[in-house]
Amino acid sequence: MKYFVLGSTYIVRLDAGEKIIETLKALCERDAIGGGFFNGLGAVGEAEIGHFDPESNGYSWVRLSDPYEIVSLYGNITVADGKPFIHAHIALGDNTFAVRGGHLKEAVVSVTCEVTLTRFRDDIGRTKDGASGLWKLALDPGGD
Amino acid sequence: MKYFVLGSTYIVRLDAGEKIIETLKALCERDAIGGGFFNGLGAVGEAEIGHFDPESNGYSWVRLSDPYEIVSLYGNITVADGKPFIHAHIALGDNTFAVRGGHLKEAVVSVTCEVTLTRFRDDIGRTKDGASGLWKLALDPGGD
Amino acid sequence: MKYFVLGSTYIVRLDAGEKIIETLKALCERDAIGGGFFNGLGAVGEAEIGHFDPESNGYSWVRLSDPYEIVSLYGNITVADGKPFIHAHIALGDNTFAVRGGHLKEAVVSVTCEVTLTRFRDDIGRTKDGASGLWKLALDPGGD
Repeated sequence: MKYFVLGSTYIVRLDAGEKIIETLKALCERDAIGGGFFNGLGAVGEAEIGHFDPESNGYSWVRLSDPYEIVSLYGNITVADGKPFIHAHIALGDNTFAVRGGHLKEAVVSVTCEVTLTRFRDDIGRTKDGASGLWKLALDPGGD
Repeated sequence: MKYFVLGSTYIVRLDAGEKIIETLKALCERDAIGGGFFNGLGAVGEAEIGHFDPESNGYSWVRLSDPYEIVSLYGNITVADGKPFIHAHIALGDNTFAVRGGHLKEAVVSVTCEVTLTRFRDDIGRTKDGASGLWKLALDPGGD
Repeated sequence: MKYFVLGSTYIVRLDAGEKIIETLKALCERDAIGGGFFNGLGAVGEAEIGHFDPESNGYSWVRLSDPYEIVSLYGNITVADGKPFIHAHIALGDNTFAVRGGHLKEAVVSVTCEVTLTRFRDDIGRTKDGASGLWKLALDPGGD
């Protein structure tokens, strides 16, 4: 991973073999980024994505292992339980150009992955929701 | 809906049962946001999305009703006819990870929806295009 | 094409018949934009998208010709070989709301295309990778 910082924006390059979530989380820990968002593109060879079912209150997961284009990648950065927390969704395109997507657990870069990440000057928190067990955005100032 | 404002960025959380377009439009009206763009992720239980056919000059619509991940969501904020106007496209992933997408008319949040919205300091206008009847971006300064 | 500049953000409208990559590249050349990123939405009538196969180290391409919604569009702007270089991925939705996507070579706008482009104050470079022949982000300061 290599990156370049321009004001509040990080331009990040992930290389073959690097895990997207793990690598971005390490960058956030290192630079104390506790709030922000990012978009990305590139290609991955392995990914695990999830779909949440509100009825069963749980995720179903699929592991994908093939050459995929990252058709879209968007995520936000917050702090949960004192640590950087990355919430990202991804769309992946295969060699027939069909697209699959969902909640991104992890993906391994095959060729390259290019991310533009905008950092907030303040942290954004998350608190665990009792009902669902999910970490939801804790937004107080300015809220309803 | 709850939100947090950091400089020109709004971090917005929509909760179960809230309509994405309606809620963002209400936020823009309340805070007089007349220009901006946003990305989002989360999950919805109902959505109506459209596809425009230039030949018939009209949209075809589909109503989806199932647990969907918001695989991608991007939109812009402008002013049309004196009111905030939200133009957004969305990709939705079902429990087989198949993705459907198009122009977002409206969607109802099932679990949560997290949006990062960047506000411009000026309004961006739209004017109705005589030929298509669509509201197109009215961009004068800096244009060709 | 018409655009409006607000601080470091360009709001760009592409019109029917205009090519997305060619037009954005011309804008970057004209305004000496050598670093940035963008998101967009709209509709196209023709597109050529690619999928990279790391094994054969080459792209396979498909030409699509139908009315498509731009379900998602994200790209970055850099400088390669002294010229603006646009790297973008796209998801396209057809009239059944099925989505196809990949690396965007070029697409022709059918109705309109609306882009928000954030410009960096500095250029971001690319260098040709000997192994793959691809132009990879050249990120030195701040990198590992």
